[in-house]
Amino acid sequence: MNLKTSPFAPESFPELPEVRGVRAAAGSRGFYARRGVTRDDVFLAVFEPGTACGGVFTRSLTASADVRWCRDALAAGGGRARALVANSGNSNAFTGPKGVLKNEATLKALTEALGAPREECFLAATGVIGEPLSDPNYVGAFVPDLSVKLGAPDWEALARAFMTTDTYPKGAGKVAEIGGAEVRFAGIAKGSGMIAPNMATMLSYVFTDAAIAPVLLQLALARAADETFNAITVDGDTSTSDTLMVFATGASGMDEITSEEDLRFRAFSAALKAVCRDLAMQVVKDGEGASKVAAIQVEEAATPASAKKIACEIANSPLIKTAMAAGDANWGRIVMAVGKAYEPIDAGRLAIWFDDVQVAKDGARAPDYDEAAASAVFAKPEFTIRVSVGAGSGRATVWTCDLTHGYVDINGAYRT
Amino acid sequence: MNLKTSPFAPESFPELPEVRGVRAAAGSRGFYARRGVTRDDVFLAVFEPGTACGGVFTRSLTASADVRWCRDALAAGGGRARALVANSGNSNAFTGPKGVLKNEATLKALTEALGAPREECFLAATGVIGEPLSDPNYVGAFVPDLSVKLGAPDWEALARAFMTTDTYPKGAGKVAEIGGAEVRFAGIAKGSGMIAPNMATMLSYVFTDAAIAPVLLQLALARAADETFNAITVDGDTSTSDTLMVFATGASGMDEITSEEDLRFRAFSAALKAVCRDLAMQVVKDGEGASKVAAIQVEEAATPASAKKIACEIANSPLIKTAMAAGDANWGRIVMAVGKAYEPIDAGRLAIWFDDVQVAKDGARAPDYDEAAASAVFAKPEFTIRVSVGAGSGRATVWTCDLTHGYVDINGAYRT
Repeated sequence: MNLKTSPFAPESFPELPEVRGVRAAAGSRGFYARRGVTRDDVFLAVFEPGTACGGVFTRSLTASADVRWCRDALAAGGGRARALVANSGNSNAFTGPKGVLKNEATLKALTEALGAPREECFLAATGVIGEPLSDPNYVGAFVPDLSVKLGAPDWEALARAFMTTDTYPKGAGKVAEIGGAEVRFAGIAKGSGMIAPNMATMLSYVFTDAAIAPVLLQLALARAADETFNAITVDGDTSTSDTLMVFATGASGMDEITSEEDLRFRAFSAALKAVCRDLAMQVVKDGEGASKVAAIQVEEAATPASAKKIACEIANSPLIKTAMAAGDANWGRIVMAVGKAYEPIDAGRLAIWFDDVQVAKDGARAPDYDEAAASAVFAKPEFTIRVSVGAGSGRATVWTCDLTHGYVDINGAYRT
Repeated sequence: MNLKTSPFAPESFPELPEVRGVRAAAGSRGFYARRGVTRDDVFLAVFEPGTACGGVFTRSLTASADVRWCRDALAAGGGRARALVANSGNSNAFTGPKGVLKNEATLKALTEALGAPREECFLAATGVIGEPLSDPNYVGAFVPDLSVKLGAPDWEALARAFMTTDTYPKGAGKVAEIGGAEVRFAGIAKGSGMIAPNMATMLSYVFTDAAIAPVLLQLALARAADETFNAITVDGDTSTSDTLMVFATGASGMDEITSEEDLRFRAFSAALKAVCRDLAMQVVKDGEGASKVAAIQVEEAATPASAKKIACEIANSPLIKTAMAAGDANWGRIVMAVGKAYEPIDAGRLAIWFDDVQVAKDGARAPDYDEAAASAVFAKPEFTIRVSVGAGSGRATVWTCDLTHGYVDINGAYRT
């Protein structure tokens, strides 16, 4: 299948800093070669001993064997990491006992090649769900090759190796001064369909040379995810593989952050969130078939959680997403979506803006409603839908893309 | 906009019985004439004094003024009805105080023309949401004309008068012997998008000449809705106008059913549910752009409610609906949807069938999986997706249609 590149694709992969304490290599298991495509489909990243890690995973009850392993390892290993292997082509979800055998074989290869404890090795897989594995060693067999190729990461090569229906590789980086130390961040992500809160990307990894205690790293990641990866949606569907992890090697030389009260924790959290936001926005902008992206801002809700629920109803409505695609400023459908969130609202105070154009006020069409001005906003590739529901002071923002013929095409053809 | 007729459209409107005690007339307010289309856009039905009624309405918190009136009238009038007026072209939802003025004007015209108490007059409107009303009397002005044309109902004419994006008029009827009396039922429905449980059709009315106490009529209707109109979905969106009402004139001559223990109540309920099911299936088969319809059967869930929640996750998944459209038997996406229902399951016992073809067993692909057989099912216009989740004995069935290019086209162009 030929995918049309997203109109939001950047001209080139961004320059990302080298993160001290991380070595990596990408390679090909030949999965895509069967389809006549030459590309990498697996990568290995190796971290200095003592690297801290944190993870946020899909809440799906049919999570992949890889996700289940990562959850267990994170708990058993106390938030320490030595290696990460990710492959595309097969998600290893719903593969029964064979899926566990694949993990065992990969972990055995990692511990042998790197001398790393099992519970500090993390695994990820993305691709078709439920495809049985003929050879449990189909990733592990490549670990020796990859481990002799390890070097300073080529972030773009890693980002390309785990793409599936993505139309461009996604990366984001940052160099932050934290308490006098130069701290580097590099993140990669893949995902463009089956995207919805909890979790919101299929796979994303952020690497940093900050020194931070695992418990604080986990806290910072969970908070960042809530306002970034868990605030984007493409189709309301939730993958069985969604994973966001962060690895902090400590190799920047800074003193370890060990307290939430440490001012450096705030600076670290802000930098991590910025990288996550950049990556999350790239995922929604590469939403399958997407031609437009909208930020849905809900305000005056009863609570922030209520605001997010209402924003998600708007963001996931097929009727609103098709109207976006057509450039039809059909604000009545926003009213519909607010009504079916079943959250507290004052319908008589409901107000809606498209960017700065007010289209509804006090529970009815705005007196100075201007169809041409509203349509002009919906013709833009990026715009804001702001909704005030008059029931409190809760606010939330969620990002979504439109529902186009491209989405129907891509998802009818994925397996073929 | 030209709508392509659904492949499921019947060759002709069904023969429905005359229901004693109901007179009706349809007419044109000229709403569609503005677009160069000659068609009716309003109907009036009038019932003999003492007619009982029941209603189930959208749970939307931005419900139309008409829905809010019907809820109030049903409570105030004790479940008695003398008239129903329904119009297409404007939903009178999110129209602020002007929407209430339209109702007042229509009710005034009805009480004057028919001598009926206000709270026994029911109103309905369907069409674009949020379009302001220039003339509050835009329905009421036509009541005198319609009331002089009243006669034995032309069910097809009524069904056509409230169509919007429907591609065919929907009707279903039944003649049942209940306790020795011949009881007649005729039902009409409209709706093809913005369809999801709670409620599941935009507007549907069933007329019968049974004699039944209002409280029992309401009970029978609520139970019927649960397994029919509230078990279908097109896009997971919920209209601000959804209404299902039943009117029982008592003109069959039977003795009134006044007890739930009366065996005739069971017979009446079964007949009502059969008519509702027929109408509900016609709605999902006319789902916007639909080319295929699937029954989603979930079994071995913890409870019936849990089974319905899982079935709805499957039925509303854009990834599954696009796979249906493409004839791609992508059963991994069923696994995904089961996982994101967050209901109790035993993932190791999960099993999936497409009609009689088992594709998954014991939490993995079925050992004798046959892609060709699975694809052959997905190539059919109607089929069953059966999922067993191994967590109890709860069962539920939900009906859905596929997500096609037609859906994207229709919903991008609706207002134009």
